[in-house]
Order: sequence, then structure tokens, then C-alpha cells
Amino acid sequence: MTLPLSLDLLDRVVQEALAEDVGAGDITTVATVPVEAHAEAQIVAKAAGIIAGLPVAQRVFYHLDPAVEFRPVVGEGAAVRAGETIARLFGRAHPILTGERVALNFLQHLSGIATHTARFVALVQGTRARITDTRKTVPGLRVLAKYAVRVGGGHNHRLGLYDAVLIKENHAAAAGGIAAAVARARGFAPHTMRIEVEVRDMREVEEALAAGADILLLDNLTAEQIRPIVEHIGARALTEASGGITEENVVAIAAAGVDIISVGALTHSVPALDLSLLLR
Amino acid sequence: MTLPLSLDLLDRVVQEALAEDVGAGDITTVATVPVEAHAEAQIVAKAAGIIAGLPVAQRVFYHLDPAVEFRPVVGEGAAVRAGETIARLFGRAHPILTGERVALNFLQHLSGIATHTARFVALVQGTRARITDTRKTVPGLRVLAKYAVRVGGGHNHRLGLYDAVLIKENHAAAAGGIAAAVARARGFAPHTMRIEVEVRDMREVEEALAAGADILLLDNLTAEQIRPIVEHIGARALTEASGGITEENVVAIAAAGVDIISVGALTHSVPALDLSLLLR
Amino acid sequence: MTLPLSLDLLDRVVQEALAEDVGAGDITTVATVPVEAHAEAQIVAKAAGIIAGLPVAQRVFYHLDPAVEFRPVVGEGAAVRAGETIARLFGRAHPILTGERVALNFLQHLSGIATHTARFVALVQGTRARITDTRKTVPGLRVLAKYAVRVGGGHNHRLGLYDAVLIKENHAAAAGGIAAAVARARGFAPHTMRIEVEVRDMREVEEALAAGADILLLDNLTAEQIRPIVEHIGARALTEASGGITEENVVAIAAAGVDIISVGALTHSVPALDLSLLLR
Amino acid sequence: MTLPLSLDLLDRVVQEALAEDVGAGDITTVATVPVEAHAEAQIVAKAAGIIAGLPVAQRVFYHLDPAVEFRPVVGEGAAVRAGETIARLFGRAHPILTGERVALNFLQHLSGIATHTARFVALVQGTRARITDTRKTVPGLRVLAKYAVRVGGGHNHRLGLYDAVLIKENHAAAAGGIAAAVARARGFAPHTMRIEVEVRDMREVEEALAAGADILLLDNLTAEQIRPIVEHIGARALTEASGGITEENVVAIAAAGVDIISVGALTHSVPALDLSLLLR
Amino acid sequence: MTLPLSLDLLDRVVQEALAEDVGAGDITTVATVPVEAHAEAQIVAKAAGIIAGLPVAQRVFYHLDPAVEFRPVVGEGAAVRAGETIARLFGRAHPILTGERVALNFLQHLSGIATHTARFVALVQGTRARITDTRKTVPGLRVLAKYAVRVGGGHNHRLGLYDAVLIKENHAAAAGGIAAAVARARGFAPHTMRIEVEVRDMREVEEALAAGADILLLDNLTAEQIRPIVEHIGARALTEASGGITEENVVAIAAAGVDIISVGALTHSVPALDLSLLLR
Amino acid sequence: MTLPLSLDLLDRVVQEALAEDVGAGDITTVATVPVEAHAEAQIVAKAAGIIAGLPVAQRVFYHLDPAVEFRPVVGEGAAVRAGETIARLFGRAHPILTGERVALNFLQHLSGIATHTARFVALVQGTRARITDTRKTVPGLRVLAKYAVRVGGGHNHRLGLYDAVLIKENHAAAAGGIAAAVARARGFAPHTMRIEVEVRDMREVEEALAAGADILLLDNLTAEQIRPIVEHIGARALTEASGGITEENVVAIAAAGVDIISVGALTHSVPALDLSLLLR
Repeated sequence: MTLPLSLDLLDRVVQEALAEDVGAGDITTVATVPVEAHAEAQIVAKAAGIIAGLPVAQRVFYHLDPAVEFRPVVGEGAAVRAGETIARLFGRAHPILTGERVALNFLQHLSGIATHTARFVALVQGTRARITDTRKTVPGLRVLAKYAVRVGGGHNHRLGLYDAVLIKENHAAAAGGIAAAVARARGFAPHTMRIEVEVRDMREVEEALAAGADILLLDNLTAEQIRPIVEHIGARALTEASGGITEENVVAIAAAGVDIISVGALTHSVPALDLSLLLR
Repeated sequence: MTLPLSLDLLDRVVQEALAEDVGAGDITTVATVPVEAHAEAQIVAKAAGIIAGLPVAQRVFYHLDPAVEFRPVVGEGAAVRAGETIARLFGRAHPILTGERVALNFLQHLSGIATHTARFVALVQGTRARITDTRKTVPGLRVLAKYAVRVGGGHNHRLGLYDAVLIKENHAAAAGGIAAAVARARGFAPHTMRIEVEVRDMREVEEALAAGADILLLDNLTAEQIRPIVEHIGARALTEASGGITEENVVAIAAAGVDIISVGALTHSVPALDLSLLLR
Repeated sequence: MTLPLSLDLLDRVVQEALAEDVGAGDITTVATVPVEAHAEAQIVAKAAGIIAGLPVAQRVFYHLDPAVEFRPVVGEGAAVRAGETIARLFGRAHPILTGERVALNFLQHLSGIATHTARFVALVQGTRARITDTRKTVPGLRVLAKYAVRVGGGHNHRLGLYDAVLIKENHAAAAGGIAAAVARARGFAPHTMRIEVEVRDMREVEEALAAGADILLLDNLTAEQIRPIVEHIGARALTEASGGITEENVVAIAAAGVDIISVGALTHSVPALDLSLLLR
Repeated sequence: MTLPLSLDLLDRVVQEALAEDVGAGDITTVATVPVEAHAEAQIVAKAAGIIAGLPVAQRVFYHLDPAVEFRPVVGEGAAVRAGETIARLFGRAHPILTGERVALNFLQHLSGIATHTARFVALVQGTRARITDTRKTVPGLRVLAKYAVRVGGGHNHRLGLYDAVLIKENHAAAAGGIAAAVARARGFAPHTMRIEVEVRDMREVEEALAAGADILLLDNLTAEQIRPIVEHIGARALTEASGGITEENVVAIAAAGVDIISVGALTHSVPALDLSLLLR
Repeated sequence: MTLPLSLDLLDRVVQEALAEDVGAGDITTVATVPVEAHAEAQIVAKAAGIIAGLPVAQRVFYHLDPAVEFRPVVGEGAAVRAGETIARLFGRAHPILTGERVALNFLQHLSGIATHTARFVALVQGTRARITDTRKTVPGLRVLAKYAVRVGGGHNHRLGLYDAVLIKENHAAAAGGIAAAVARARGFAPHTMRIEVEVRDMREVEEALAAGADILLLDNLTAEQIRPIVEHIGARALTEASGGITEENVVAIAAAGVDIISVGALTHSVPALDLSLLLR
Repeated sequence: MTLPLSLDLLDRVVQEALAEDVGAGDITTVATVPVEAHAEAQIVAKAAGIIAGLPVAQRVFYHLDPAVEFRPVVGEGAAVRAGETIARLFGRAHPILTGERVALNFLQHLSGIATHTARFVALVQGTRARITDTRKTVPGLRVLAKYAVRVGGGHNHRLGLYDAVLIKENHAAAAGGIAAAVARARGFAPHTMRIEVEVRDMREVEEALAAGADILLLDNLTAEQIRPIVEHIGARALTEASGGITEENVVAIAAAGVDIISVGALTHSVPALDLSLLLR
């Protein structure tokens, strides 16, 4: 889902980030810059990528001084080239200098996620597969990270442990088998949730389908291993591939016919998009 | 500084991460696993690296069930090989299954930082340079990220805007020049802080030294550009190189004689160390 | 889902309730009762019902004094008669007197929900229908209220707006019809979620089924109106009845063949179960 | 006391309620409704009652979008008939759809309390008795619940354990009798507080009066038992009746001459007032 | 009232104070002291006074390391001489060095309040007057400050604006006179509260008494002005003197016959009691 | 450093102070003053001093009602005489009456600090010494207290344990001597921090200087003891005097040539500046 950026939630994250970086005050700026000095600045991309997080950056400066004008030049989700200006700022120099790093930290991380996601999405274009994230996010930024995946054209997997059922090998073993686990989950979970089950071979596929699983998770299989399983399943369930997905193997896995490809690296190993704030 | 992991601070971060992932409850585990079922598990490295975050992982499970035993097999900061076990867990299956992802998210991110740092530290061994982090951390994890840099053998730069003076080009310009900026900062900042000033050429070096700067920051210069400046400065101030530092150029920059090399990528572009929790 | 009572979440709610009632201190007890005086007490049902909330009550006393022993006499979910003892307490008199009202407020409200739920569940026994709650809970107690519904034998509907898709009339209208709304939701929501759609007549049933809806919501219809629709739908989707469900009409509605009956009154109009704490 | 709705306090409760229901986002609305679509809506009473909570509902929508216009049609405390419009909303459809349930949950619970209270107040009109609430409120909503009692024409008893002295049987026993308990409380409590004492018979009445009690609490007595005690006390103290007060017996109890009748059911067993939000 | 030190409330204050002082870590101690080094220490009075805050100091060290043993040598409220040991500590050196300043800051401030209070209490001994505090406390420490007043032998006035009625000149003027103000307050406030009214002359005394005021506040009057008013009032109401009370004039004011003397300086101008932590 | 008053940080402190004093509501004002009554007020100094905290007071009233106009008459840091008006307020009477005490509590404490500081600063004028605060602040108000010191013309010492290195006797002993302690701190602390070391005699001075200490702390020495040490040190390090500094001895100590004089009493024993809010 595209997580709408609720202002309350956004402000909690932004205020915490400012408290972390600014703390009792930006000594250097307070000491050296006249409090009423004005500034104009622009945020510029130093590498090509997809921009995500403009509303977050806007709130960073807003919390330091509501009078700062933050004017996006490109839209959220825009593909930018190196050198392109993505936003302009007008206002007192203090909040602009003080907020620069926090705003860039958000923008660079979220744009990094969006950029990474967009590459995967482009690779599977034309197949039935949707690229999704996982729960492998940096602690504290789950909602923003999943938002950035959507901005990059990807889809979201579950938000956490509370909004979906995903029966992995250990759950099935503890429950006495896949069939028992699915039955228990069906009896327990809200009727609004589908049941997803990790399966490792044809026998487990059949057991899961017989038990009424809605989605079958194929973890750590190669495209070659995936294809016959997906074909065997047909329309009886959705199929998801996960584990070790890279830009190198994602095309083959998508071509194997799965419906969903979940990629942990979208959010757990994020090269920041290089951005810079320049004052005039 | 090696940030000691204050329990209060650690618990705030851990509880927030659990709230984010577990929320109202781990539906799958509650539905499928008997509440009193016991489990043994191990956390295993799937790639070589430096381990950081064991005390964080320990608190994750502690918050779900104080009776879970989390037994590190290697020390914090240990270099591990792929396949090596780093910790063992004993306890009820519920907290182990429910806490797995949050614990791994912390461990993988912090170990990724430590691993990355250790590579840079190894590269400059034998030179006078110390590798430091920057303020380019993922929002909300500043203290833990800087802790992981220390675990990896690096040093910390300032924590935030409140604990050091770093006069950049814009501050100097706003103050009416480097000399005026240093004087104002000296009059304003606690006497316990050194004054660091960004300089771009010999003229600015001289101006900063004359004003009494303690540390000179050379931003975005090549090793070739840095060497003569550092030699010119001699023992009159500490020197720091920053901007665009990579594993490729760090050796040359260290050889150019700087005291400090600060590397944003240590914390802003962190490939997670691949770890896995295996239940028996 | 049965929401497991996460200790962190539970403690937040309990601490807030204690802060609200005890505030700066229980003046009367502090003034009149010697600080080391011991007491024994029992919590007794003054009406028949289903007990829910024992772990919550236990934490109330624990936060006032970890040494208080709270010993349940019946299990969570037990059906008790008027006069039956449900728990015994041993410890200093101060925490028992100070925590009495907060503990009872939780127990009475949650047992009221469980009791109410159990009556509905008993009425539909033998039919295919499961009784669920709604989002009509008292603000701040959603997770506990939904837990109590489970204790009473009911099931949970979605937790909130973030964990399920429920397309109501207004959403469909804004999207340009049911088909468009379902398509958008399918494209947007995580693949782990089913799509539920409110339908008012056969035409809308067909439109929703054609669009791939998984669950059809029949709101504010009588058993007579529901039966033919449910029969028409057959196994093509789950069916849910909601709106104006009472103990009087629930049997007929269940007999009409729906899969889910959601009852707002379970949580929005809860007669507290009458309980009392008696000191010896 | 009529608790004024402090904006800070109100916003804390409202933000928590929104976080609980909306969480990471309203998936259905985000997926199906254009973000800039406008809507007009009205909140309509589906049953007769007393309206309480309009300022709370207003803040719910304000937090989702400050531009939503929430226009009350009736005043706080108004008696409305089924079918009557109580407020109109104008603004983007997103915040109106997303905030609907939280706003109604507050309004229905608080209006339920006010409606219930107003019935008791009407019944004792013409007597000296004032109807008050108790500490039997749903955890987390104490201040709002007590506000709603005032809106319904009732009065407030103490807010919690910290703002009044109420010596019950157990306190007196622990202190070595009523006289000792009153003396200790008088020595201990701020001089701004009256001392209320639970008494069970004439002997205890005399002991409490002799000790200087200001208010005598008659718990779980019938009107017949109350009348002679109240007459005996005369003007020497205020009298309060509590325990098992219902719409059936409150008139007789008021007629017995007590000054205060406290009714737990006003807040612990609240049938929500049936309200509905209709979009045009 | 003696505010009992609720552990939850105490821990919130202590954790905030530690976060404020220790923040990301005690660099000096971490750098220089081996993490497992043990220490013994004592807290010693460097001036005579009354000790308050031992339980607060104990929690400071507990939060840094639950294994630190904090052993009070004197009781809470003890009168100590300069040079006297008030507590001993045993445990790791880290938490003792890190917690020293926060623990002393609490102890010195609270003992300062208790010491100051005890002097006033001693001065009025033998009169009917009780010494109370006011709401003039340092923001954030109200409950602890009022606790320290009790430790010093004083009494508490109201905690805040929410737990008592005190009609000052401006309230009376706004209400249309003292009589109207008292009547409104009587109708509005819980019946458990007395009504206190500020009066400036005999006419206002009579008006307030006729309206049923329970306590009359004589603000900024001399002992000579107070005596005839108090005699005139007799047993018809309690009397409180406030405003400009000093150790010089308190004896005369007490001798004038008032029941309560409230002293802002007890908490707003507190000379810290000089204490020191010595390591062996 | 002059701590800029970050709005987020300020609002947290202000909201906590209001919650502490106003709680569930200002009963007296709500009962007696019409909700729409307007008022004009002024805050007047009743003693001479330096005003600090005007922005804090402004936010107190803002949080109660954003429409209250708070108009400072003098600037932050102004020296005022008894009787001088320092601010005027216009708005509804409710927020002005309700916020009066909290606003004055902040203003009186912070102005007390500024006034006290200004006296010390004036005494050392013409010497090289700067007056600084210490960590001996009232818990919870560190940032505001240090801000007030700056307003009074003083300078700040470190904010807490996390932003500076100060090696005291116990640290040196634990590390195996001053030389070892300085070396460890140098290796551990960020390069932006100076190393301050407590020294007791010439031998320790030499050891600290040889180890590279930047600042030498002379604790609890007389001016006579300090002078030869400072002369001996010369320009090799900064010197700080602390311990038992009073208005009586500060001139002599400054004359002894130290660079910094830190005064605990500036913040730990603060006589409030007497201020009053007068309504017209």
C-alpha cells in the first residue's frame, strides 16, 4: 500500500530526528550567523535517481521555523539526473543551516530506497510479478521505508507481524504440519486476511492448497526450481518468491511466473542517493 | 567515543522497534505455536564481517520474555566467517519467533556499519589517520550507529550540532569571514570545545590559523591537493579530510598526512551483514 | 485474532490508567494505613459472566508493588457465577487498596465485553457464522477490547484502517463504482489482504464478484433480505452481515447463511460485569 | 466540576485514538478516493439523547487536516431527537472518511454518558440531591467521562485518589477506628479538602461526626435505611448515598434527603448514543 | 499531604534527569575507567540540614545499574550535621561516577527544601499554625518538591489548579463579587472540596462567610492587620496567611492566630543543601 | 554557548509544566469567570534584576490559548528596576488566570539565574576570567538554566557528561594516573573535544601538561594557591577555578589569572526574582 504520510506520524519521526541532531542547539550557527539573516538554498541531486521524502524534508524545516518556504521543483517520485535541482528554500538562514543535515538524511535514505526499488520494478516490467518490500527495514523507519518503496513503483508486503499471516517452516512444524497450521490460522485470524504459507516442495504445495492457503511462498529457490512449481499451482493460489533476489536474477524469477517477488535489500541495504544543499 | 549502551536509551529504541513490528501481536505465531512450546535457536553469519549489536539483540528478546536466554558465542566486535554461529537462544518459541526479525534488523544494520568501518580502518593502518563517522546517519539510530563505528575500530566525530563547533563555508560567509566566525565561536562555545573550520586554500588556512582554529577541515580535495596543505599546516592544527572518501582513495588520503578522515558512507549507505536465525 | 497481551503494550495502558487515578498519590491510604500493614483480599463476581482481563489486573498491582501476589482462582475466559471468587491477593495493604479501582475498572469492562460476546456466540452455535467485533471501541482500549472479544469466544474483524480493505458505499462512489474501487484496492493493498466490499443489491453483488471481491458486506439488511443474496453468492465469496445486530435477530441472521456477523455493541455499549474486591 | 477541555490534554487523547485506528494509514480511502476529492457530510442522531463531545470530534478531523470545517449545528449539551443533524463537515473527503469512526466513537461514548446522566438528573429534580459520577470510568478516559457527566447536568465526585479523602471501612479498620482515621487524614491532607467517611450505622455516624468528618457516605443502603440516618445527621454534615443506584430507586433515595447520590453506572456501563456520519 | 513516592512517577523523573545529563554516554568515565572496576563511595553532608530524596537517589543509581547497592545511613527526614555520612554505595565504579551528579542534584534540592521548611516549622511550634507550601515550585518537580516539604515537617497546600478552589480577587471581580463567586464554585466543584476565598477587609470577611466560604485567605497583611480579622472570624472558618512570609515575621504571624501559613520561598528560592559523594 | 530556544524543546517543557499545574482543569477560573471575559494584565518586577525567560512565558499562554497576545516591554536580558513592567498581556481572562503561575514560575527561576550570574560577571569585569555554570542544575531544566546563564552574561560549561571530557581525581586514579587517563581519553573522545584535567599540585600540573591536557581544573583552591599555579602554567593550557566560589572571593580568584571560573550556585541555589502578574 502507499502509506499516506499522516502528519501526526510524520511529525513524531521528524521531531525525534531533530532532537537527535540538534539537541540543545546548533552552536556553530547560533554563534556565527546573525539570527535574522536570510538565505536562499537549493537541494540538488549529485546522482541520478528517484526522489522520495520531499514532504518529510518540508516538515523538518517547518519544525525549526514555520516561516521557511520549502518549494519542491520536482514531484515526489520524479526521476532526476545528476545536477538537477529538486527543491528550493527561502527563509532565515538559521533554520536552513540547522535543518540541512536532518532533511538530507531523510531524503537520501528514502530516495535511495525509491531508486533501488525502481530498478527492480523496471527489470520485471512486462511480467506478472509485482516487486514488494519485506520487514527487513531499519528500526524506527518502517512506515517511511515502505512509503518510499511505493514511491519507487513497488508494492508493500505486510507492515508487521500484526497485519498478515505468514506461516513459515517453524510455525508449521510447531503446529504439527502445514494443514494444521493453516486451519489454526484460519480459525484465529480476522477473515480479512489471506493465509500465506512457505512451501519447499510439491508435497507441501499440495498440502497447503488442500488446507486452503491463499498464497504460497517459495523461499530461496532458483528460477528453475520455481517455474514447475508455479505452473503446477496455476490459478489455485498466488505465488511469492523471496530470498536472495538480486538485480541479476530477478528477471529470470519473474519470468518463472510468480505473482510477487519480495526483496529485502530494497530496505536493508540502501545506498543513499547523493544529494546536496547549496546556499546562495 | 565509544558510546556505552545505556540501558534506558537502548530500551527506548528496542521498545519502539518492537512496537513497530509486533504491534498488537504476532498473529501467525499466536495462532500456530503452542504458547508454552520451547525452542533452541542460533544466529548464524551468512557472510564474513564484524559483529555489532549483540546487547541490542539481547534486549529485544528480553522485552518479549525476560526468561529467554540469549547467549553470545562471539564477543561484540568479533570478526566472523560465513557459517559461524554468533549467538544461541533458549526459551519459549513465541518470543524467539516474534523477536527474530527485529533482533536481526538491528544486528544486520549495526554489523554492517562495523564491517564497513573495519575495512576502512584496516586500509589506513600504519598511518596517523583515524577514521571517523559523520552526522549522515539514518534518523533515529544516531547513537547506535556511532556505537557500531567504534565497535568496528573507527572513531566518532561529533554526535550532533550541540556538542562541537564546525564552521563551514556558509557560516564563515555569514559571519563576515573566517576570522570573525572563529572569534564569535570562541566567545560563545563552552571552553571545552575545539573550533574546527572548513578551509579551501592556503589563504583560508592562514586566516583560520591566525584566528586560533584548532582543526582544519579539507572538504572534497584529492590526496594531491591535501598533501601540501597538510605539510604547510604542520603541527599548528589537526587536519581532517572529508567528502567522497572511498575504499579506493582512502589510502592515498591517509598517506597525505591528515589526522582524521571522516566517511559518510560508513553510516548512510550500509549494506546489512547477512545473518540468519535458525531454529532447531 | 487472539491478541496476545504483549507486556510492553499492556504496561503502557496500565501505567496510564494508574497515572490517571493515583496521580500524585492515594491520600486516604497514605494517611490512614500503616505503610507496612499486610492484607489479604479476594476479587468476587457479583453477577454471572465470563472473566477477561486477569493479566491486566495482575500488572496493575505489580506496578504499585512487585511483591503483591495476585493469584487467579479461575482461568481467563472462565464462566463464573455470582458469588464466585476469581482471584486472591496477598501483600501490603497499600498497593491493594490503591490499585483496587483501576484493576476492577479493567476487569469489569473487559469481562463485560467477554460476557456480551459469549451470549452472541452461544446464540449462533451450530451455524456457519462467526461473531466478530468492529472498530466501534472506546478510544484507547482497542487492543484490549478485541482481546476480550476473543476471550468471550468471538473473532476479530480488522484492528483498524491500516490492516484491511473495506470498500464502503462512499469509497465506491468516489472511485467511480465498485469495479473501479476493487481494482484500485487490488493494485494498492498488500497481496496479503482480502478485499471486502459493501453491496446493497444483486447488481452490486455481481459487480463486486466480477471485480474479484473476496468478501461481501451486507449492511443493515434483515435476515429475509440476506438469505437470497447469500444463496446467490454461494461459494464465490465470504459474506458478512452487519448493522443493528441484536440478541433478538442474530439467530435469524445466522440462519440466513452468512459467514461473519459483526456486532458493534460488543464493544461500544458494554455493561460492566459487576465485580468486587473484598479485604479480609 | 465541569472540566474545561484543555487543548493539550484533548489533543493527547485524540492523537492516541487516531494512532490506534489509522496507524500507518487508511488503505481503503487512499486506494480508492482521489486525494483532492471534496465532500460534505453531516453527523445525524439516530436516537434521542444529549450531545457531548463536539469539541473532541472537531479535533479529530483537525488533526487529519486542519482545513476540514467542522460546524456544530447544536450546542454541546443539546437534547436532540432521532434524525436531527448535530454537525456538518466540509472539506477533503480523505480526512472525513478516515476520521469518521474515531470521531463517532468519542461522540457516541460521551453522548451516551451525558444522556444517561441527564435521565438521573431529571428524576431527582426538585430534591436537594445532586447526581455525581464515581471513579468507575473506562481507563484512559477519566477526564472526558467526567466532562460528559457535567454536560449531562450531573456533578463530579473526586477525579482520582489524589484530590480528595474518602475513608472507607478498610481504611478505618487499618487506622484503628473511624476517629483515628479522620484525625490522621486531617493531619495529613491539604486543608483545602473535606474529609468524607463511610458509615454503616448510627454509632459510626456519631463517631465520624465527633471526629470532625465533613461528609458521610452511606453505601448500599435502601431509601428506608437512609432516611432516619440523614434526619439524625441533620446539618452536621453532608450526606452521600452510593451503591446500586438505578433509575428505579434513585427517586426514593433522593426523597430520603441525601445531598449527593453517586452513580457508577453513569460511566462504567454506557450504552453509546447511536450517531451516524452521512456523506452527500 | 505526604506524597508517597510512586515508583512509576519517580522513575519518569529520574529517567528524564539521567537522559538530560548522561545523554549518549559519560565519555570521561567510559574512556578512563575499566568497565568492571568496583568502587565504594559515601554521600556526606557538608552542611547541617534535613535529608530528603534518598529514594530518588537510590533510583538514579538503580537505572544505571540495578546491581549498585545504595545503603542509606540515616533515615529520610533525618537532621544531619556537617560531616555526617548519609548513604553508602557499593558496586561498579561506572554507574557510581556517572550517576553522582544527578543523584546529588536531586538530594541537594530536596534536602534544601526540607531544611528550609523545618526552620519555619520549628519557628511556629506551639502555635496553631501549620506551615504549607504553595504552587511556586520549579517546573517539573512539583510532586517531589511537595514531598520534600512534608519530609521537612510542613504540610501541603493544593497540588495544582485542579484539586482545590481558591477564589482570588480577580475571580471574585469577574464573577460579580465574592458571594456570586462562592455560589458558582459551590455549584461547580466536587462536594469534597472546601472553598477558600481571598479577603482584604472585614466587609469581605463577612461577605465570604455569609456565602459559605470554608477558608479565608489573608494575603500580604502584617501580623497586626491579621490578628483582629482572625479574632473576628473565630471558628467560623479556617484562616490562611500568605505573601511575604519570612523567618523574621513568621512567628508574629503565627501568634496572630491563623491556622495556615503558606510560604512560597520554601520551594521557589531553595539554597541547595551542600552534599558530596566521596569515592574510596 | 547561548542555547537557542528550540521551539520543540521549549514546548515539551512548557506542556509538561502546564500538565503539572493545570491538570484536568483550573476549577476556580472555570467556575467563576465567564469563558469569554477579556482581560489585560501586566507582569511587573517587584525587585531589581535581569529578565530571562520571556519566550518561555509567551509559550505558556500560547498553549492555553493561541489568541492571547503576550507583548514584552523589555528585551530578554534587560536589567529592570523594582516596579518596572516587563510584559503586557491581552486576551481572554481564562488563559491569563490559568497560566499566570506557570509563566511566573519559569520567569522567576530563570530571571533569578540571570540576575545571579550578572552579579558575578560584573565582579570579574576587566579580568581575563569568564564566569561559567556547572552541571549542578535542577533536574529537568538544564537547557533552560544554561540559557539563563548566557542571558545573564555568563558562559556555559559542558551541557552534560556526553559533550566534554573532564578527568577528575577518581578517573585518573582508576586509569592508573593522569598520563594514562589523558591518553585514553584522547584515543576515545571525538577529536573536537578538548581534554580537561583536575590537578592538585605542581607535579600533577606537569604530568597533565606533558600528557597533552588542554585545560587544567583547579578545584577548591584559594586565590593565593591558584596564582602561582596559573603563572607556572602560562600559555600552555587554559585554567579553570571551581569549588566554593562566592561573590566574596570571586574577584580575588579572577585576579589570580584563571581563564574560567565555574560557579555551581548560579543554578543550584537560585533565589527567584520577585515578579507579579497584575490584572486590570
